[in-house]
Amino acid sequence: MKRLRELHPYVYGEQPNIKGLIKLNTNENPYPPSPKVLAAVKAAVDGRLRLYPNPTAQALREKLAKLHRCHENNIIVGNGSDELLALATRCFVEPVSEGGVPRRPNLGSRGARPSGIIQYFTPSYSLYPVLADIHGAARNAVPLKSDFSLPSIAELKDGRGKPPKGGTPNRWILDAALTFVTTPNAPSGRGYSTRELDALCKAQRGVMVLDEAYVDFAGENALKLALKYPHILVARTFSKAYSLCFQRVGYFVGHRDLIAALHKIRDSYNVNGLGQIAAEATLDDLPYYRANFKKIIATREWLSRELTKLGFRVLPSRTNFILARPSRFSAPAWRQSLRVQKVLVRWFDRPEVKDYLRITIGTAAEAEALVNAVRKILTRR
Amino acid sequence: MKRLRELHPYVYGEQPNIKGLIKLNTNENPYPPSPKVLAAVKAAVDGRLRLYPNPTAQALREKLAKLHRCHENNIIVGNGSDELLALATRCFVEPVSEGGVPRRPNLGSRGARPSGIIQYFTPSYSLYPVLADIHGAARNAVPLKSDFSLPSIAELKDGRGKPPKGGTPNRWILDAALTFVTTPNAPSGRGYSTRELDALCKAQRGVMVLDEAYVDFAGENALKLALKYPHILVARTFSKAYSLCFQRVGYFVGHRDLIAALHKIRDSYNVNGLGQIAAEATLDDLPYYRANFKKIIATREWLSRELTKLGFRVLPSRTNFILARPSRFSAPAWRQSLRVQKVLVRWFDRPEVKDYLRITIGTAAEAEALVNAVRKILTRR
Repeated sequence: MKRLRELHPYVYGEQPNIKGLIKLNTNENPYPPSPKVLAAVKAAVDGRLRLYPNPTAQALREKLAKLHRCHENNIIVGNGSDELLALATRCFVEPVSEGGVPRRPNLGSRGARPSGIIQYFTPSYSLYPVLADIHGAARNAVPLKSDFSLPSIAELKDGRGKPPKGGTPNRWILDAALTFVTTPNAPSGRGYSTRELDALCKAQRGVMVLDEAYVDFAGENALKLALKYPHILVARTFSKAYSLCFQRVGYFVGHRDLIAALHKIRDSYNVNGLGQIAAEATLDDLPYYRANFKKIIATREWLSRELTKLGFRVLPSRTNFILARPSRFSAPAWRQSLRVQKVLVRWFDRPEVKDYLRITIGTAAEAEALVNAVRKILTRR
Repeated sequence: MKRLRELHPYVYGEQPNIKGLIKLNTNENPYPPSPKVLAAVKAAVDGRLRLYPNPTAQALREKLAKLHRCHENNIIVGNGSDELLALATRCFVEPVSEGGVPRRPNLGSRGARPSGIIQYFTPSYSLYPVLADIHGAARNAVPLKSDFSLPSIAELKDGRGKPPKGGTPNRWILDAALTFVTTPNAPSGRGYSTRELDALCKAQRGVMVLDEAYVDFAGENALKLALKYPHILVARTFSKAYSLCFQRVGYFVGHRDLIAALHKIRDSYNVNGLGQIAAEATLDDLPYYRANFKKIIATREWLSRELTKLGFRVLPSRTNFILARPSRFSAPAWRQSLRVQKVLVRWFDRPEVKDYLRITIGTAAEAEALVNAVRKILTRR
């Protein structure tokens, strides 16, 4: 299909296997899973691997329902939250027919209907436009304000969301079939208040996913909005905060009708069995993880101060990474120089963030190593 | 969406957790994974679970390429082969627009174009029509002959594929966008010769998936056809023959252009890390599994003879299950009576097979327990 030939797939961060490299490029947690989680997974590695896993992740959904004070029918578990984001596009958005896929919706004319639109703020998770393209849906990318904050509802309604630099402001569409909002956001690290998000939920008429992949590093979360409104889903993942990237477990919380629709179209056995077991054991040992969140937040604040002293402009972060604008030479040159010093960070070749590095918060020792590498580079150049 | 509200999801076999139950209903392997596989998985359960798995299952694809004497670009690994079957529908088939989804294609008129058609023989894997419905594609179900053999190419071209009982013969479509053929087939257990399949591949113009989930229990396989033709994919899974249902690992082999298109639209980290490790270790210990295939085949032949003596009509099987028509009372009544005896088998409420039970081949002891249960039931009724 023409659409597929022209498709630009999602670009994931490098996963090199180089000894001694400090990997601060893909927002993984620097701390291992809890010893109890490792023990639970090891104990499950036996002849039972021959059997199919529970098709609905029943026990995990029951535990999650208890944690979030909702019903298990409000929860669907996925092969990482990425699977669920893709599932939502297929569940709630009608594709636009081949050949007629506008990259931006043709509003007010006989072009793409609102029902075929996937909408998101930009810059944000770069998977969203890829999901729209894969599904053959129209994309509507609406710029955040220049400080990466959310435009107000009044601004959105007026189409006055201002682009950070050179971008074209697209008009926000209240009845877009599906809207993705990452909160706290990536790559900015910026958090949004539940109050602001509530106002957005109230105004929005199509389905909206609040992707809370990084929420455990923030001060508040918007989970209650998924249980308050019938058109809101909150996405969570065990990958980042719970050190389980390898296992692929994420979930949505939302109205049972939305959840039931998603269950209908997922693969029957979409969540591997050891992933289910790891996630269940994780929920039995939350204090271990909460202690890690504190350490990561402390390191984030320390690193932000140190880099600021060294001339970086560090944006305030509510996540396990920071977006920092280096001085003296360009961000890609910094990335390269840091790599030579065996520190891997991420740079995005996109207009709004091309002057920034995105740096994952590692251990205190890794943060110190980064600061030392920055000092070395500044001295040498 | 209307289509989703009316959708009948795939019905998977029961996964009860009842002690002492002999589970012969979901075609799982009765033997555990190799001790070396269990050791490799256990050894990987450590702090590395915090990291993302390899996004393309690179090491596993390299090993598979060596095994199948092809290039790693001829291989894509999925979250079970089910994920890949679903991915193929989205990759190669244009959905028919909402409201205009014919359950059978409207040939020769201005209805569904052949490009929007998913085609398969029936009875076969009941997931295929579900995948078509989820994607909003037109289905074309063409009956196998009454002995579950493939119609000849001449018969297919003439639309003379005869239905087993009461079904309406649909015409085979040579340029259907996507055709699924399970070989050996389920639930019949019938094997198809590579010669027959080659003729079908040669005649077919759209993409065709030969789903070889059960092929290790047969005498031959059709893998070479995936490397011979540019429009043929062969699906394999580690679930059944390699005792890894729990881990979700399957793969496609095929032309690099088909494989590249599928890679473009899959989730970035679709295969969990421990699944990749288990599958790699499996390929390092194939003699262990080949010994199990021999045991399962021997048990299958013994069970087929014993059930035949007890009045069942057992179809010849090239898989790890048999389709058997019991005597005296109905198949669902047999299923129920066997369940009371703590033996779980599968019955499908579909016209072509409603007189049959599908029985997974367990261990020799489980097969004996089944035969004893049958004897008991025959004596009592």
